[in-house]
Amino acid sequence: MLPNPIKNFVDAFARLPSIGPRQATRLAFYISNLGKAKIRELAEAIADLANLVTCSRCFRAYTPASGQDPSAGSGQAHSAGSGQVGKGGLCSICSDSTRDKSLIAVIEKETDLLSLEKTRKFNGWYLVLGELSKLGELGPEQKLRLSSLKDFIKKELSGSAEEIIIATNPTAYGDLSAVTLKKELEGNAGKITRLGRGIPTGGEIEFADEDTLGSALDRRL
Amino acid sequence: MLPNPIKNFVDAFARLPSIGPRQATRLAFYISNLGKAKIRELAEAIADLANLVTCSRCFRAYTPASGQDPSAGSGQAHSAGSGQVGKGGLCSICSDSTRDKSLIAVIEKETDLLSLEKTRKFNGWYLVLGELSKLGELGPEQKLRLSSLKDFIKKELSGSAEEIIIATNPTAYGDLSAVTLKKELEGNAGKITRLGRGIPTGGEIEFADEDTLGSALDRRL
Repeated sequence: MLPNPIKNFVDAFARLPSIGPRQATRLAFYISNLGKAKIRELAEAIADLANLVTCSRCFRAYTPASGQDPSAGSGQAHSAGSGQVGKGGLCSICSDSTRDKSLIAVIEKETDLLSLEKTRKFNGWYLVLGELSKLGELGPEQKLRLSSLKDFIKKELSGSAEEIIIATNPTAYGDLSAVTLKKELEGNAGKITRLGRGIPTGGEIEFADEDTLGSALDRRL
Repeated sequence: MLPNPIKNFVDAFARLPSIGPRQATRLAFYISNLGKAKIRELAEAIADLANLVTCSRCFRAYTPASGQDPSAGSGQAHSAGSGQVGKGGLCSICSDSTRDKSLIAVIEKETDLLSLEKTRKFNGWYLVLGELSKLGELGPEQKLRLSSLKDFIKKELSGSAEEIIIATNPTAYGDLSAVTLKKELEGNAGKITRLGRGIPTGGEIEFADEDTLGSALDRRL
């Protein structure tokens, strides 16, 4: 019943997180009605994501600045033929000498990095792990990134960072991951901390659950 | 802060229905981590939507079958250079001679057509209007499609269809659109109807709102 291009689109996009077959079908028909020029624009916006490279230190995606020397980082910018997004040099955060290299936030997603940067209260750098399994287990890529962090700490920070903030979500799953990560990183930092919990700004005490309110009491200042 | 390819993706995709800037940002990073091959696959799935043509009678998108004679329809298959999805001949429903040409369902979206087809209870054809404004006003493209329908009724059905079903959603907005459409189509069919309202299969009387329950009483059989 579905025309082939619609079917292929639904197959490909329904696999993306938070897009199901229904939304994918609606999108497919919507996009098909936008006209050739808009369709091309959307296709190119996706294709361009392949131009991002991964920072060799923090593993976040970035576009190498045209004026930037790729050999500045420990890695080398190259487009990998293996179908992987290329490994790059250092991103703007990791190559910023005013950033405190001894303060590291371990995060799951690049969007978490953006949120933390918006606070303008963090002057360290990030290790982007990628989303952790719901059971708090580490995948092979995540283990690789953690050993890359430990190597950095050994070589550049004489074996111990000042502080590692395990910035996983304050959820049951995030707590589980935090336990795993803490075990994995023990001995690599003076302090291993997590983000504070409490009532969010704008929230009301009356409606806070007892766990949140307990945390708010513990962390009062 | 956002790398350019991510920013461009978010700009383009956040404009699509039911995708906001947050989901677009999460998708951008997720897709960028899929690797070059998967990224190309997604880009091609979008680009291929431009290969769909619009049925010259019902205006739904379809892929012209390779063996089909495009001159069979009143239109001519051609890829328009104007940036528009090409106008085609007749789709599989409109060229199906066992379908009742005198029974027409006016629908908003192609996904509504799919749902109605799944019932296997409708043997007429559809006029796909495109989503109507929340105020029930008709856009220029929608006026064009309605006059195309009226032309068809005049030429092929000697001025009057047997029945036109106005299959807009049973919501306040859908009701408003139905009023507009009914006014627009008056005199072109023996009957102008809407889909029945009542308690959905699996629903419970206890939880049905009084409007739904009232409709269920009216339409009992």
